[in-house]
Amino acid sequence: MRIALGIEYDGSGFSGWETQARGRTVQNVVEIALAEIATSPIQTVCAGRTDSGVHAYGQVVHFDTSAERPETAWVLGTNTRLPGDVSIKWAKAVPDSFHARYSAVSRCYHYWIKEGYSRSALSRDRATFIPGVLNIQQMATASKSLVGEYDFSAFRSSRCQSRTPWRTIHSIDVFRYGEMVKIKVVANAFLQHMVRNLVGSLVEVGKGRKSPCWLKETLLSKDRRCAGPTMAPNGLYLVEVTYPTDFQIPRLSDSGFL
Amino acid sequence: MRIALGIEYDGSGFSGWETQARGRTVQNVVEIALAEIATSPIQTVCAGRTDSGVHAYGQVVHFDTSAERPETAWVLGTNTRLPGDVSIKWAKAVPDSFHARYSAVSRCYHYWIKEGYSRSALSRDRATFIPGVLNIQQMATASKSLVGEYDFSAFRSSRCQSRTPWRTIHSIDVFRYGEMVKIKVVANAFLQHMVRNLVGSLVEVGKGRKSPCWLKETLLSKDRRCAGPTMAPNGLYLVEVTYPTDFQIPRLSDSGFL
Repeated sequence: MRIALGIEYDGSGFSGWETQARGRTVQNVVEIALAEIATSPIQTVCAGRTDSGVHAYGQVVHFDTSAERPETAWVLGTNTRLPGDVSIKWAKAVPDSFHARYSAVSRCYHYWIKEGYSRSALSRDRATFIPGVLNIQQMATASKSLVGEYDFSAFRSSRCQSRTPWRTIHSIDVFRYGEMVKIKVVANAFLQHMVRNLVGSLVEVGKGRKSPCWLKETLLSKDRRCAGPTMAPNGLYLVEVTYPTDFQIPRLSDSGFL
Repeated sequence: MRIALGIEYDGSGFSGWETQARGRTVQNVVEIALAEIATSPIQTVCAGRTDSGVHAYGQVVHFDTSAERPETAWVLGTNTRLPGDVSIKWAKAVPDSFHARYSAVSRCYHYWIKEGYSRSALSRDRATFIPGVLNIQQMATASKSLVGEYDFSAFRSSRCQSRTPWRTIHSIDVFRYGEMVKIKVVANAFLQHMVRNLVGSLVEVGKGRKSPCWLKETLLSKDRRCAGPTMAPNGLYLVEVTYPTDFQIPRLSDSGFL
């Protein structure tokens, strides 16, 4: 039987999603807790392998098991065995044709920035602090030039293992809530560090160091050295993964809240 | 010279504001950092002595010093000497007639609740989780009966050292943002645990266990045993302290954000 799960985590205390030789990872703590519920080992496959320090409201995984458990056991039972910085949000039996990564049709990430005069204690692990005030109109204008199907090599980590640098960005929106700025990016898929590199370049525009049309030139250069710096992981959230409606995967209500 | 400061902190890692024989306190780390800037010992007086685990966006303190420093030194200089979970937001020279506690005319607290099916990893230290859905209309109706000048003994901690149980609540408002519920309480001053006890009783109404008129009866009983439980500190925020306008104390822009 194949089970899909929605998972939320605070990435601050994790060395990313994927189990590694060293470091505490989300995959590792989730698989240990699921194995206790299943009373047999569990291997998960995730929709998006988030980096160290990156958060998730809507990570999706699937796993196969012969253990028959009610949905509440996979959610509430697993939660009692998980540390406080990870929680299962929903569980659903899915057909074997469902694959958390390959069935996904789009991913939505949010990047949160806290601007202002002085750094913020309460958002220190949840948003990246940028002194001053960003011009979000300029950022919004610049971001429009990235929407569409492009070779995103200019915003790709040198360690990215994807076979192709081509991705399709469906939308980029920039919101302001007081001194908080949220950048929402929806794409079919992302290259490694792509959101953090895109946001780093949008911030150059928001600070007035670069013009909005510079972003399009950077994209077309396909040269990582032309783009802005990689933003810190602490402002990044995997918010939602979308699947074909036939699978009836639950959607989180987007409250607009961090 | 008397200086006033606005201070933000994540209360999760602190045993409250006030310096004690044991435990890490906000007052202690702030006074150590200020003393480094002043190059002499500093003693602060705060507007509201928050309990262990309680957060602040807008704590206000004052202190006296003979050290003449620009305002940026008191803010940005002190911040470089503070741990990440505390930050100075503003500094201002004030007349000796200003007193962080006694000059305050009102305090505003927010209490955040995360409701829903499953606990939330990302808000675990920032909001209290309540399973299910709260009826916020009933909570709003009930809260109106607490607005005014009353003997709040029913919502007072047994350890409260205030000479009088009388306080004036100016307003109580209940907001919903998706699965987050925010209760905003403004009063001239608060008794110990008063917000957490009030919210504990409002939650009884929101869950449908008690009717809105029960809250008024509880208030009039002046009996702590009649009221609901004390809510956990992790959802509570000291958001703003208001002073007579003559002092020109900076006000934080209320972004409505957590």
